[in-house]
Amino acid sequence: MVTFKRLLLGRPLKSTELGEQKLNKKKALAILSSDALSSVAYGPEQILLVLITVGTAAFWYSLPIAAGVLILLLALILSYRQIIFAYPQGGGAYVVSKTNLGTYAGLVSGGSLLVDYILTVAVSVSAGTDAITSAFPALHEHTVAISIAFVVFITILNLRGVTESASILAYPVYLFVLALFIMIGVGLYNAVTGGVHGTVHVPLSTPMAGISLFLLLRAFASGSSALTGVEAISNAIPNFKAPAPNNASKTLIAMGILLAILFAGIVLLAYSYGIVPKAEETVVSQIAEMTFGRSFMYYFIQGTTALILILAANTGYSAFPLLAVNLAKDKFIPRMFTVRGDRLGYSNGIISLGILSILLIVAFKGQTEQLIPLYAVGVFIPFTLAQTGMMLKWLREKPEGWLPKLVINTIGAVICLVVTLMFFVTKFAQVWPVLVFLPCIVLLFHRIKKHYVAVGDQLRLTTCEPNVPIEGNVIVLPVSGITHVVEHSVDYAKSLKPDQIIAVYIPFERDEEAAFEKKWNQWRPDVRLVTLHSPYRSIIHPLSKFIDTVQRKANEAHYQVTVIIPQFIPKKGWHHLLHNQTSLMIRAYLLYRKDVIVTTVPYHLKK
Amino acid sequence: MVTFKRLLLGRPLKSTELGEQKLNKKKALAILSSDALSSVAYGPEQILLVLITVGTAAFWYSLPIAAGVLILLLALILSYRQIIFAYPQGGGAYVVSKTNLGTYAGLVSGGSLLVDYILTVAVSVSAGTDAITSAFPALHEHTVAISIAFVVFITILNLRGVTESASILAYPVYLFVLALFIMIGVGLYNAVTGGVHGTVHVPLSTPMAGISLFLLLRAFASGSSALTGVEAISNAIPNFKAPAPNNASKTLIAMGILLAILFAGIVLLAYSYGIVPKAEETVVSQIAEMTFGRSFMYYFIQGTTALILILAANTGYSAFPLLAVNLAKDKFIPRMFTVRGDRLGYSNGIISLGILSILLIVAFKGQTEQLIPLYAVGVFIPFTLAQTGMMLKWLREKPEGWLPKLVINTIGAVICLVVTLMFFVTKFAQVWPVLVFLPCIVLLFHRIKKHYVAVGDQLRLTTCEPNVPIEGNVIVLPVSGITHVVEHSVDYAKSLKPDQIIAVYIPFERDEEAAFEKKWNQWRPDVRLVTLHSPYRSIIHPLSKFIDTVQRKANEAHYQVTVIIPQFIPKKGWHHLLHNQTSLMIRAYLLYRKDVIVTTVPYHLKK
Repeated sequence: MVTFKRLLLGRPLKSTELGEQKLNKKKALAILSSDALSSVAYGPEQILLVLITVGTAAFWYSLPIAAGVLILLLALILSYRQIIFAYPQGGGAYVVSKTNLGTYAGLVSGGSLLVDYILTVAVSVSAGTDAITSAFPALHEHTVAISIAFVVFITILNLRGVTESASILAYPVYLFVLALFIMIGVGLYNAVTGGVHGTVHVPLSTPMAGISLFLLLRAFASGSSALTGVEAISNAIPNFKAPAPNNASKTLIAMGILLAILFAGIVLLAYSYGIVPKAEETVVSQIAEMTFGRSFMYYFIQGTTALILILAANTGYSAFPLLAVNLAKDKFIPRMFTVRGDRLGYSNGIISLGILSILLIVAFKGQTEQLIPLYAVGVFIPFTLAQTGMMLKWLREKPEGWLPKLVINTIGAVICLVVTLMFFVTKFAQVWPVLVFLPCIVLLFHRIKKHYVAVGDQLRLTTCEPNVPIEGNVIVLPVSGITHVVEHSVDYAKSLKPDQIIAVYIPFERDEEAAFEKKWNQWRPDVRLVTLHSPYRSIIHPLSKFIDTVQRKANEAHYQVTVIIPQFIPKKGWHHLLHNQTSLMIRAYLLYRKDVIVTTVPYHLKK
Repeated sequence: MVTFKRLLLGRPLKSTELGEQKLNKKKALAILSSDALSSVAYGPEQILLVLITVGTAAFWYSLPIAAGVLILLLALILSYRQIIFAYPQGGGAYVVSKTNLGTYAGLVSGGSLLVDYILTVAVSVSAGTDAITSAFPALHEHTVAISIAFVVFITILNLRGVTESASILAYPVYLFVLALFIMIGVGLYNAVTGGVHGTVHVPLSTPMAGISLFLLLRAFASGSSALTGVEAISNAIPNFKAPAPNNASKTLIAMGILLAILFAGIVLLAYSYGIVPKAEETVVSQIAEMTFGRSFMYYFIQGTTALILILAANTGYSAFPLLAVNLAKDKFIPRMFTVRGDRLGYSNGIISLGILSILLIVAFKGQTEQLIPLYAVGVFIPFTLAQTGMMLKWLREKPEGWLPKLVINTIGAVICLVVTLMFFVTKFAQVWPVLVFLPCIVLLFHRIKKHYVAVGDQLRLTTCEPNVPIEGNVIVLPVSGITHVVEHSVDYAKSLKPDQIIAVYIPFERDEEAAFEKKWNQWRPDVRLVTLHSPYRSIIHPLSKFIDTVQRKANEAHYQVTVIIPQFIPKKGWHHLLHNQTSLMIRAYLLYRKDVIVTTVPYHLKK
């Protein structure tokens, strides 16, 4: 078992080795931006899909809409850069909202991001699997199994530690960026030199009759879904090498530039080539085919796209555990999320994320596309709250040069709010669950916090009632016969020199009673025996009633009652089935129902 | 929970109420013969199905074959009557084979009957459900669910107690017998008065070319499958009112007579009416239709037939738990099968039978017909062994009038052996699993017995090594901080006045170490504190190593080591998730891996 765990995860790491587990900028960019970068594979298409409802003549609007998305991206990047420096301990939108807007806003941000990272993993792994099963239709019936295998693989990689997963996952990310750069470069050269003629080509600024502001905003909101994942870096600052905030900020800017170039390039090419979105072929695939034909480059672009869709899941694995640590430190989720595993990752967070996303994949049978709007709105709610929080921060603190900062965050907040509202207005049918689960999550967070606070109060020496002093001990010893095990328990009880030892025997038949008393008194006349006839053949009920009586008397004298229970430890696992587990049942019953101390005397069977 | 159990099973019964739970002959006949009687619904058909392979002209052979089956029935009834008086404590074939032929023969009998009762339940419930879904085709897709519901219903009825299930189940059994009696009476009258003319009518003793002895024996073996269930009464003697053996014997004879009349009547009618077996209609249904048309009586016969097929399962419920008690008393299966439940039934046997037969039904998706030959051979193996055992008994003991008894058992043994061999020769493809699972079961029985014997030796005061005297106590007290709970544990440890108390603190960081030691020494300078720095963030490993060291020293001085572990008991179930369960993990590890006593100090959270 231990060897298998070693093989899977590698040797355990000392706490002092934490520094070596930090990320440099190149690796951080790869694993934290895969989610954002992968969205250029579907973001531009989303815009065209809205515009086509009016007609292909409306496609020129994709250019100003893309410009709008780029402005939003710029606002987000600048704004998150400010967040990184203002909150260098990480936690992103959760910490910003909590600090500036109060606990509830923080919990809404934190809860919606937590759910969102689960959705990220499920959605991106399913999308990547779809890309693979489209290429190899024979695999189609195994979609769910393949998706689960990918989640398990990414989970194990992350349990091995953040640097190790970064080393492996960096290659596909950079290959994807390289592939798209080549495509955009060659494609734009072709477009300018007139080497390619698309099917549709609409001159710019053709006025359109059917187009409305509503439609344009809807297209804009859809395109903005390409910006999910931008917040990941601000959550994961503690994973960066020192100086963490500087490195995180530089990484964020690099990601922004890459994202802007790829997004703008694809929109521009789609427009120049006059590409019309098709159900059976993605926009990127069409562009790649028109640029290179079905050559090696085409397949290279398709392959790296499929890979990065799957790896986008990894961003969730980097951000979720760190967000969970922040929530757990504030006692809103179970404490176990703050514990580092053998390889210094927050393994409980990683494992929970893996399990929850597998459950989502299974529940939706691998068809998670309908979750995309939900996922986008789950990002833009914390975006809006974080920007608003930053606005308030600048207004409140007014540090040097606060006005441009305020302007940036205000623009960001307004755009994010508009996008969020657009999702609710235009896609309410897919987005409404957020209105159900967010209040539930916030309520759950509160109940957990309440419990931890109550426990703390009950444990703290200064706030709790003082302990009653223990002035003596009474030991109750249930016995099932006169055996070696009972002898050992009696010897042990005597060695503790309690004020009283009471052996208890519970016969089911009246006639066993006298016989056993006689045998006992011959064997251990110095230990008092009580027999409790049990006509209904229950052990627990008469024992429980007897202990109540003993305890009532003991309490008066401030005596402590201890019940000593022998337990067989069989040599082989299956032997457990051959024993009645009475001792386990008695122990559990007494601990949960009574206020007695339970001592287990193990008896290790040798054969 | 308790109320629900009451509602389902009724109030618990005292052990002294056992007498009232015994069966009179009328009820016993109903519940113990339902299996045997139900087989007349398919036994005669089985004979015709073999004969039809030669041609309808061979149907007259069904009469001498039926005579053969009746002779076998007579031999079995007389022989089991002798078993009842010779072994009035019940246990049937298992006890007879074990006593006279040795343990292995006993285990083969017991194991094959045990499996057989599970098959009985699965096969008969499935058959009954098939009868229902044939009548109401809309229910067809719910076959498995309906079968499971029936098993659950019969299981609950049996958990409520044997008399109660008998009272409910007696009506359908007697109604079935009544219905068939009327049918046979009216049918034979019609046949004699020439009121009915069948499609085929072959004169008796027409010599046949294609018929062989092999075929006749095969038809005979198939017809003999109607005799499964005859042994049930001999297993269930303890369920009878006193004088149990007399009452059981009378019930057995009554069952034999009923079975003989029904079997002979149906074979005779089928021959007189010239009935040819059809895939879509049973022989009994054809006879009923030719006798009464599609009148009320027809549906009455069909209805009671479906009911008795389901109730045949109940015979398994009466015999399985009692056979299990016998095996468990001999330590071949887990002890829990000897424990009486709240309503004085052997509830573990009843529940196990229910679960196992549900598993079979699910595994075969409700299509358990292919198990019938397996089931028949599983009955005839113990039949043969029991008869042989009785032969040896008479030869060995030679009581007064032993010769006729020997003759009866010898005839029985020879016929049963022939039937068993016929099953292997003619239906090997369906019957071979018995050659796999019987050795496995016998091996399992032996391993269980070996374990219990070894445990007994280790517990008995006379055979085990004497206990090492305990000359002092060392208490190890893992602490996680300075809290109310730790205070209580320290007070408790002190009240036991051990020779040494060692508090153990396990920090993950070096700098926590000194700080905690300082705080502890201010708080409880009289209790020795040991800190164990854990660079790999494990609690169990350093604690385990430390306890090893303590124990080595303690053993030298014959001191006993006790580890005191505080455990939170949260107020609500879901709160468990919020605590790390470290105390449970430590406790399990220490009990299973070390030879230390573990004391759990519960701390009941009030909020």
